[in-house]
Amino acid sequence: MTKLKISPFAPSEIPSLLPIAGFKMATAETGIKYKNRTDLWVVYGCPGTQIAGVFTKNLCPGYPVVWSKKALTVKNEGPSLLVVNSGVANVFGGQRGKDAIVKIAESCERVFDVKSKSVIFASTGVIGEALDASKIISHLPDINENLFDDGWSNGAEAIMTTDTYPKVSTASAVINGIPVKINGIAKGSGMIAPDMATMLSFIATDANLSDSVLQNLLNSNVQDTFNSITVDSDTSTSDTLLLMASCTAQHNKVNDPYDPSLDSFIKALRFVLKDLALQVVKDGEGISKFIKIKIKGALSNSSAKVIGLSIANSPLVKTAIAGEDANWGRIVMAVGKSGESAERDKLSISIGPYTIAEGGDISKDYDEDKVSSYMQNPNIDLTVDLGLGDGKANIYTCDLTHDYISINADYRS
Amino acid sequence: MTKLKISPFAPSEIPSLLPIAGFKMATAETGIKYKNRTDLWVVYGCPGTQIAGVFTKNLCPGYPVVWSKKALTVKNEGPSLLVVNSGVANVFGGQRGKDAIVKIAESCERVFDVKSKSVIFASTGVIGEALDASKIISHLPDINENLFDDGWSNGAEAIMTTDTYPKVSTASAVINGIPVKINGIAKGSGMIAPDMATMLSFIATDANLSDSVLQNLLNSNVQDTFNSITVDSDTSTSDTLLLMASCTAQHNKVNDPYDPSLDSFIKALRFVLKDLALQVVKDGEGISKFIKIKIKGALSNSSAKVIGLSIANSPLVKTAIAGEDANWGRIVMAVGKSGESAERDKLSISIGPYTIAEGGDISKDYDEDKVSSYMQNPNIDLTVDLGLGDGKANIYTCDLTHDYISINADYRS
Repeated sequence: MTKLKISPFAPSEIPSLLPIAGFKMATAETGIKYKNRTDLWVVYGCPGTQIAGVFTKNLCPGYPVVWSKKALTVKNEGPSLLVVNSGVANVFGGQRGKDAIVKIAESCERVFDVKSKSVIFASTGVIGEALDASKIISHLPDINENLFDDGWSNGAEAIMTTDTYPKVSTASAVINGIPVKINGIAKGSGMIAPDMATMLSFIATDANLSDSVLQNLLNSNVQDTFNSITVDSDTSTSDTLLLMASCTAQHNKVNDPYDPSLDSFIKALRFVLKDLALQVVKDGEGISKFIKIKIKGALSNSSAKVIGLSIANSPLVKTAIAGEDANWGRIVMAVGKSGESAERDKLSISIGPYTIAEGGDISKDYDEDKVSSYMQNPNIDLTVDLGLGDGKANIYTCDLTHDYISINADYRS
Repeated sequence: MTKLKISPFAPSEIPSLLPIAGFKMATAETGIKYKNRTDLWVVYGCPGTQIAGVFTKNLCPGYPVVWSKKALTVKNEGPSLLVVNSGVANVFGGQRGKDAIVKIAESCERVFDVKSKSVIFASTGVIGEALDASKIISHLPDINENLFDDGWSNGAEAIMTTDTYPKVSTASAVINGIPVKINGIAKGSGMIAPDMATMLSFIATDANLSDSVLQNLLNSNVQDTFNSITVDSDTSTSDTLLLMASCTAQHNKVNDPYDPSLDSFIKALRFVLKDLALQVVKDGEGISKFIKIKIKGALSNSSAKVIGLSIANSPLVKTAIAGEDANWGRIVMAVGKSGESAERDKLSISIGPYTIAEGGDISKDYDEDKVSSYMQNPNIDLTVDLGLGDGKANIYTCDLTHDYISINADYRS
């Protein structure tokens, strides 16, 4: 495998996440695929833990996705268990892949005293290989001995594949006067074009929220966070985003997602979701530029999103930005190929603070030198105003570079 | 601009095209963008010439596309004129871009004695610059002096942009006992995901066919030829495919596209269309592998085509093949992300003659060594059987390599 160059957007210091009451966890080196690093993360939630999730819409989903969607519907009064591995995504591994999950779940029931059908799985890594259940099962007793409340950052490291840095985020909020915390971790960094959530991300809180509140908050806040990023237009078979609440905070249980007491929590949750989503893009395979695409003036918000994704997924736009070339003609092409309503002569395009094109023509004030100089920034803002309505959307992506090719031309070998 | 490496699929010898009665042509070096090469090709069709065309569905089309769609509807008893340039695509160049076409058309009327509104334009090259009309107009008198019937190959060279070889094709047929000829030329080689036709292609014949027959034959034969190829998923603003008949052949005019006398002609036309379409892929920017994707067992032909394009446009599938990696897990992902009906456990996937996966599992007969050895071929065949119905489609594409990035990160500069 190609040695990965650390993303230029890697934070100089990874923030440390504090424990969240009600959750204990541990990691292990099972050698499923990678050597000399952790690749298994197990999280134990105290009885009463509520979990909500959104999953990939890819129609060939991994076995863990199929299993976990069902597991979330299992009535469970006891503790919860989340088992996450990297290395093998356990997609299209035939009966062995399906059996592996059943075996691990049954083993979890014995070791952790949890209901096997309620165990939640998430796997990331190569597609087309069955997970080797024995590698995981043999580590479960040790993990059970070593469960500890301070393992969020370790988890973020264990779930990495081609990620060049662990992605963590934390925020705090207040519900009815009681402080609550939110921790989140995520992984990228290729096959990222979430149609429900990105590959894997796990958010936890001690807030006392019903499962329907959790699911509602997840659904309503994923659209403009994880579902507004793309690295390479390829929607993974394993996308999984979980929101878990231990419900240990000493406020009355909130059962209504529109309860005003949730205002501070929702703000904090949105911060964590967006922070993690942007970290995934900023570690996009081979990234040299982080690109924010702001669409406005579209006929609707959903139209704006389709146009934004068409620009973000265009290999020609992405390579132009990699080459620090303000090739706005390719942006026009990508707007037009989206199939959404657009009128060439009403379009206006800005790059950074500079208006490049308007009224179907290059801007009178266009100054090639200034724009060329702007293109050398690591952060590139593109704004497209369709001039048709009030629809808007922000999309976040990265450029397409030689390093993306290097990483993906020999990832499996 | 990056020096282009010649495609490994470039033919060792470019076939020479013979003249077609009724057409004369010439090329010129106007210096619109490129130096020391031809960039203008003008074709003069004798009175009675019939022309049909299909154009890009990109909603921000170039001015030449908008103009030419209208020009095809102009009643014209006199000669026809086609003006094609490379270097500047004349898209989004504001009023100057629109005016340029009007000025050149008026000049054509004076120089060639054609009806200005019937002149057909096609331009390819950078988007976002207006065509400089004077550069073309100043060469028109010279071109008129030098019109000659033997200029098809010269035309194929003049319309190249990042193409590494000229694309020509020829075939002959018989209509009611009278021999007729077909010549065709095309250009690629990036921004290729035709939604109507590829960037530019011009087919000519001496057959005596009505314009409605021409249009019908073009529409019914473009779907599984030019509309079944993709290089990089980006649909150009300038796609134009014309079929021109000088009608000089001595058979009775054919007015019915279903006339059995057309059988031989249709066969020859399909040969030329497919030959040119595949040549465009085989000169796809940065190509190292030519990939044929055969989809069968889908619910419908259109579903098969969507699935085939989803695989063909997946950067992860394309980079895996560039790396000679039989990463069929990415094919599963691309099938699933297409949104079309698919059932993981009914899918079967073959690479070359080798069945890789079936029944939701890796094939019992899978032999990594044989498949790895197959992946070193320049021509890669992928077959996906959905196992659901009778729908099928063939899609043609190329891999995604470092050279694609090099070409496109500094194309404009």
